[in-house]
Amino acid sequence: MGGDHGPSVTIPAAVSFANHEPDAELILVGLEDVIRAELKKLNAADHPRLSIVNATEVVAMDDPLEVALRRKKDSSMRVAISLVKEGLAQACVSAGNTGALMAVSRYVLKTIPGVDRPAICTLIPNQKNAPTYMLDLGANVDCEPQHLHQFALMGSALVSALEGRAKPTVGLLNIGEEDIKGNEVVKQTATLLRADHQKGVLNFYGNVEGNDIFEGTTDIVVCDGFVGNVVLKASEGLGRFVKNALTAEFKRNPLNLLGAVIARGAIKSFSHRMNPSRYNGASLLGLRGVVFKSHGGEDAYGYEWAIKRAFEAARHDVLSRISKAIAELMPQAPAPAAPLVPDATIELTHQKTA
Amino acid sequence: MGGDHGPSVTIPAAVSFANHEPDAELILVGLEDVIRAELKKLNAADHPRLSIVNATEVVAMDDPLEVALRRKKDSSMRVAISLVKEGLAQACVSAGNTGALMAVSRYVLKTIPGVDRPAICTLIPNQKNAPTYMLDLGANVDCEPQHLHQFALMGSALVSALEGRAKPTVGLLNIGEEDIKGNEVVKQTATLLRADHQKGVLNFYGNVEGNDIFEGTTDIVVCDGFVGNVVLKASEGLGRFVKNALTAEFKRNPLNLLGAVIARGAIKSFSHRMNPSRYNGASLLGLRGVVFKSHGGEDAYGYEWAIKRAFEAARHDVLSRISKAIAELMPQAPAPAAPLVPDATIELTHQKTA
Repeated sequence: MGGDHGPSVTIPAAVSFANHEPDAELILVGLEDVIRAELKKLNAADHPRLSIVNATEVVAMDDPLEVALRRKKDSSMRVAISLVKEGLAQACVSAGNTGALMAVSRYVLKTIPGVDRPAICTLIPNQKNAPTYMLDLGANVDCEPQHLHQFALMGSALVSALEGRAKPTVGLLNIGEEDIKGNEVVKQTATLLRADHQKGVLNFYGNVEGNDIFEGTTDIVVCDGFVGNVVLKASEGLGRFVKNALTAEFKRNPLNLLGAVIARGAIKSFSHRMNPSRYNGASLLGLRGVVFKSHGGEDAYGYEWAIKRAFEAARHDVLSRISKAIAELMPQAPAPAAPLVPDATIELTHQKTA
Repeated sequence: MGGDHGPSVTIPAAVSFANHEPDAELILVGLEDVIRAELKKLNAADHPRLSIVNATEVVAMDDPLEVALRRKKDSSMRVAISLVKEGLAQACVSAGNTGALMAVSRYVLKTIPGVDRPAICTLIPNQKNAPTYMLDLGANVDCEPQHLHQFALMGSALVSALEGRAKPTVGLLNIGEEDIKGNEVVKQTATLLRADHQKGVLNFYGNVEGNDIFEGTTDIVVCDGFVGNVVLKASEGLGRFVKNALTAEFKRNPLNLLGAVIARGAIKSFSHRMNPSRYNGASLLGLRGVVFKSHGGEDAYGYEWAIKRAFEAARHDVLSRISKAIAELMPQAPAPAAPLVPDATIELTHQKTA
């Protein structure tokens, strides 16, 4: 039900994914009448691998966390996550409010033992034509070294599962490559990651800088949620700026337009490569269940990518891989009890609310 | 003497600037023989508004701060900054090591009363075709609210002077627009800036997000040096990625190439608009003297922009405007003594040293 467009985007995406992926069964959670009407429009009312679970409430994009958590107990978000909790679904996908999704997921599913705080991980295109996985993207605005350490382990397990790479490289986002650079949190995190590297359990590359995200220097880039969120949105903003500026130049006069028409293959191929929809689908890592977040503004094409990523994560058993990595590598001391709603005040989509 | 290319870039830039700007007198500081040889190559050995001050040492790009500060007392960087201190120059421009430039500037010039920490401010192109000024970009990796507050005041005074705008808008970089978003430092900073806005002394827009930098939502974006440095380098990295990807597509086959040739006006105009060299020249704000830093990798065209910015800052008396703004707006309690070399462990240029 969530996102900027709701079922008019999520249902077509679900139908398309079910048609393309014969192993997938999808449970559509939300206002039953609305979902049924959308399915009918698509001639998919009797699809054998699509079912509906009714939920009478909807978490609005601007609902406070309190409302999502304590008032709307029959929201589509809460019911969908509960299906994962009960083992009736192997993954949940939502385009809803990121903060609410994280808070409800955390409340219903709880965290994996050894994980203090879940993190949000997404893919970013890079020069090597292989995605850079980056986390955290906003779930944790203040991080201690042990949190960044856990993000590195979780990211490594995720990429290892999804990309089939035994030892993906991990970079620590910093303002320089040398060990002396950065703030205290980053320096102490580097010490923890170097120790893991020595043990052979993590492929720690070292410090990376902002440009390395797009150069594909490492498979994974670890940072706190404040930095990650700002960098992600800045990149989206720069991407739109470039696109608009290029389009405006091509339309400036008939000669430019003619050139653009002749080279339309190049422009189409470039647009496809840079299309953020292809990278849609952020993973909420560290929970006892697979939850994926779609960008709120995505169309059906983009939302289908988020479903695909969640499906792959479930199929490759990302969850037990992360649990195993954390259990093996984290100190055995019991983790301090985490607050119910930590810093989940984030939204991946930039908001233009008043 | 600094930067990736040294006098082979800085001297041609200086000669070109002097030729374009009849009001400018340039003092070239460094190894006299090297400078003289460069001037000779350019037939500018007897230029009436170019003079040379010899300095026998050079701060290398990878010199530790200690070396720049205490060993190389006759470095071109140190001598040039001392000329500003002594009133023999109105501004200093360097392409050298950013951390060293900040540390030496701070040591020689000292900070403006009321400023705890100098900051680095640069221009970023935006959709509105007017630059976004962003600070800090790496001088301060850990910031308290009062530091971000000072950055806002200094940035406002700078933009007011350089862009001739009475009340430029100031945005606080955050992960959401709402007051409840972000970490404690950002929330407390917002309170300080709102108070200034109430007093009518600062045009505080409120929180901005990463995308707003490129949308030109505000004239100034304030953030700590860690976030600013990462965002700046990420943007540079994304810019190169886009450029390479587009070039590769146009070269993929003869038809694409033909289109690109026909639309070359559009491509040239787009490249010019996006050319980072046009935005070269970061200001070290909060010092008792005008110091500008050029990107280390710039060519003569880019370096000339840095000289131009420093010249304009001196001409518009940015220094006394900042001093006035700080004196009027900051609490009258004496500022705590700042450490000599605080967090000046940054480099704006990403380093690929071992």
